[in-house]
Amino acid sequence: MAERYCFGVDIGGTTVKLGLFNTAGDVKYKWEIPTRKDEDGKFIIPDIAEAISKVIDEKKIDIKDVAGVGMGAPGPVDKQGVVNRCVNLGWGIKNIAKELEDLLKVPVKAGNDANVAALGEMWKGGGKGYDNIVLVTLGTGVGGGIIIDGEIMAGSAGAGGEIGHIHVEDDESESCGCGNKGCLEQYASATGLVRIANKQLKSKDKDSVLRNSEVTAKTVFDAVKAGDELAVEIAEEFGEYLGKGLAVVACVVNPEIFVIGGGVSKAGEILLTFIEKYYRKYVFHASREALFALATLGNDAGIYGAAKLVLDEAG
Amino acid sequence: MAERYCFGVDIGGTTVKLGLFNTAGDVKYKWEIPTRKDEDGKFIIPDIAEAISKVIDEKKIDIKDVAGVGMGAPGPVDKQGVVNRCVNLGWGIKNIAKELEDLLKVPVKAGNDANVAALGEMWKGGGKGYDNIVLVTLGTGVGGGIIIDGEIMAGSAGAGGEIGHIHVEDDESESCGCGNKGCLEQYASATGLVRIANKQLKSKDKDSVLRNSEVTAKTVFDAVKAGDELAVEIAEEFGEYLGKGLAVVACVVNPEIFVIGGGVSKAGEILLTFIEKYYRKYVFHASREALFALATLGNDAGIYGAAKLVLDEAG
Repeated sequence: MAERYCFGVDIGGTTVKLGLFNTAGDVKYKWEIPTRKDEDGKFIIPDIAEAISKVIDEKKIDIKDVAGVGMGAPGPVDKQGVVNRCVNLGWGIKNIAKELEDLLKVPVKAGNDANVAALGEMWKGGGKGYDNIVLVTLGTGVGGGIIIDGEIMAGSAGAGGEIGHIHVEDDESESCGCGNKGCLEQYASATGLVRIANKQLKSKDKDSVLRNSEVTAKTVFDAVKAGDELAVEIAEEFGEYLGKGLAVVACVVNPEIFVIGGGVSKAGEILLTFIEKYYRKYVFHASREALFALATLGNDAGIYGAAKLVLDEAG
Repeated sequence: MAERYCFGVDIGGTTVKLGLFNTAGDVKYKWEIPTRKDEDGKFIIPDIAEAISKVIDEKKIDIKDVAGVGMGAPGPVDKQGVVNRCVNLGWGIKNIAKELEDLLKVPVKAGNDANVAALGEMWKGGGKGYDNIVLVTLGTGVGGGIIIDGEIMAGSAGAGGEIGHIHVEDDESESCGCGNKGCLEQYASATGLVRIANKQLKSKDKDSVLRNSEVTAKTVFDAVKAGDELAVEIAEEFGEYLGKGLAVVACVVNPEIFVIGGGVSKAGEILLTFIEKYYRKYVFHASREALFALATLGNDAGIYGAAKLVLDEAG
């Protein structure tokens, strides 16, 4: 029997990442195309169809050997593949799975990008070997994707796993991007970490290498590794908010493992020690033994998860 | 074709409730037997088998017309029906579904009682018509059961939906029964409401009918209905904790509806107004439209959900 293939597509605001996989999950070819957002994003799906068709031709793949295409999109997506507003891309309500399926004549599945990335990390990344995982993405914001029994938990309106907006602080005067006050994202994102750092640098007299460098998630954790006392105190505050927030997530979905990704996770294993310490403090005992791991797929989590999405469907 | 049947069993610490249902979900007969906890609860499952066999005989039901038996048990239960310690009943680790199946020779499914009750409320109670629901039980403690796409979300160790132990207060000096401080259950259970009431009665000078009566969840909400100002302030504090906690749950699982049950819910619709007010304040906008309803099955939610559990399996 000929090798069978599938495609994983991760639609971002600037580029669309694509991957050709065999059904065992080995990536055979990776490439990118620009995301054309003109005219309410009407070219995005046709562009993806064309890009995939071209690779099918170039690689001389028989279309009968293509199990399908999975896609992740930056917005709420229901089980039928209907996107409900992707502001970033100009999309209103439309069924992107059906649109691509009509163009390519192969099965297409779609999901929210954060959820799809979580599926990727479960399949081939930091959550490999587990099927109840929570992916926590610490970037400009705090994103999340939840996998229950091997399947994406999308929520009734595609808003499951919005863990960046868990309320963790009653005494906050500044607003989160969402309009609320005291969201996890205000403390545990890269931006939030810098905010905590600047506040502590201002309120404390202690000397620190951070006083003579740009304050970023990277410089803070570099300073932690160098033993800088104030940097450690900053990381403790950051870890307490995140550990407390994930303890709440555990009360709700009781995962086997939390997989931590996004830019902040480049700090490495040391990051996990600050999160786990406070997670164990706040969590309900039945979830105390949850594991913590770093994400390993980086920007490829989306294409892996998208491929897995369609493979699951293909059976 | 003869009418087909199933049984729903709700195992409690004092009594086991049983129900005979037809497959449309009409309850045909309800009864109870005592829960015999002697000798590590080894008689409980045989007693259930005997009770069911007796009713099958009495009602002249052909065993071929029994689709199966569903059971809810007060502890973590995995998908295979394995209980992992029910301290209340004396059980260690054992497969109660298989044990009953071997005795009755019909399919048996088992789940955690709170989760099974949530399934019952979805099927025939306050959550009817929805398939993404969170049941919140406000009794001595705060319990929860989460249904995603019509199925119980049990969590990896059967500890999903433990929403009573969501951390909602950083400034708490007293410990929750679980050992942590600041759990939702410390404020939003019947006990927690009384604790809030007693604190406010002590710290405030305001007159109140509650100063001349026993303080219980019932007397507090009766006073609220009578327009007692202090009682309203107590209900506001209670509602803020619960609304904040459920907003967090919504960030994680994004349900269509919260169904509120347990003793405190006897207060009626007025209870929901205090919860919803603060829920809408704290929740992420994508989950703002979630509905709130009262549970309607009372103590029967368990037998209904247990019946549904086995009907789902029977297909």
